[in-house]
Amino acid sequence: MQIRHAEPADYGRVIGRVNAWWGGREMAPMLPRLFFVHFEGTSYVLDDEDGQLAAFLIGFLSQTDPEEAYVHFVGVAPEHRGEGLGRRLYERFFEDARGHGRTRVRSVTSPANEESVAFHKALGFEAERVAHDYDGPGEDRVLFVKPLG
Amino acid sequence: MQIRHAEPADYGRVIGRVNAWWGGREMAPMLPRLFFVHFEGTSYVLDDEDGQLAAFLIGFLSQTDPEEAYVHFVGVAPEHRGEGLGRRLYERFFEDARGHGRTRVRSVTSPANEESVAFHKALGFEAERVAHDYDGPGEDRVLFVKPLG
Repeated sequence: MQIRHAEPADYGRVIGRVNAWWGGREMAPMLPRLFFVHFEGTSYVLDDEDGQLAAFLIGFLSQTDPEEAYVHFVGVAPEHRGEGLGRRLYERFFEDARGHGRTRVRSVTSPANEESVAFHKALGFEAERVAHDYDGPGEDRVLFVKPLG
Repeated sequence: MQIRHAEPADYGRVIGRVNAWWGGREMAPMLPRLFFVHFEGTSYVLDDEDGQLAAFLIGFLSQTDPEEAYVHFVGVAPEHRGEGLGRRLYERFFEDARGHGRTRVRSVTSPANEESVAFHKALGFEAERVAHDYDGPGEDRVLFVKPLG
């Protein structure tokens, strides 16, 4: 499976799968098309041998801090979990972020999402702290940072 | 009222007001803190004489297209509508986008939001077309573009 850059044309197929991957939850408000249109160079998709979406990552270069890059959203198809696809996508993002002169990557996740917390630590992210109401009332987030060596 | 750049510290007060301005709808998923952290330089708030949030605009420079800038979200307090605050915020955004070498601004809105459609036209945006399912199933959007003279 080859990683390629996400394109606006991927949006429909991603959003169609993502709601199912998240157990029927409506994910589109969190993932508007703008990320596929305006952050192509730091966003990626992985299709499986049948041309079905296996995994994707949406990230960008911070406009505020020229040292930072940020991962907004990562999804892996349930039937492809445990194959290292998430890691491959993150490593590609790290490489491209480094190529743009970034020295660290940030990401946030819900403290209730133990799988995501463990995954970030396995990738070399440090959990700085848990921030209450970070993404709105009741939306606590673990703040992760990883230096790019 | 003076326009200033949005900061991460504004996030809580913005999200607290925005849900009320949108009639109790949960807007936080559409407006995560990342926009306040990573796109400060092209995002703005306007406080009224009492220090209450009167209006804000969240925008960014396209990473894909060095000619483009994008407005993601604009909100004006109901008690301050009709005072031209939205226009002031957009004009400040146009000015800063131009300063970064951008030659056009894009924005999208729901075709059902007639007020927003009329507002964009009054600001000099052209409605390119209505795109079906643009931001997910059933989420049609009018695609606006404005050249920066």
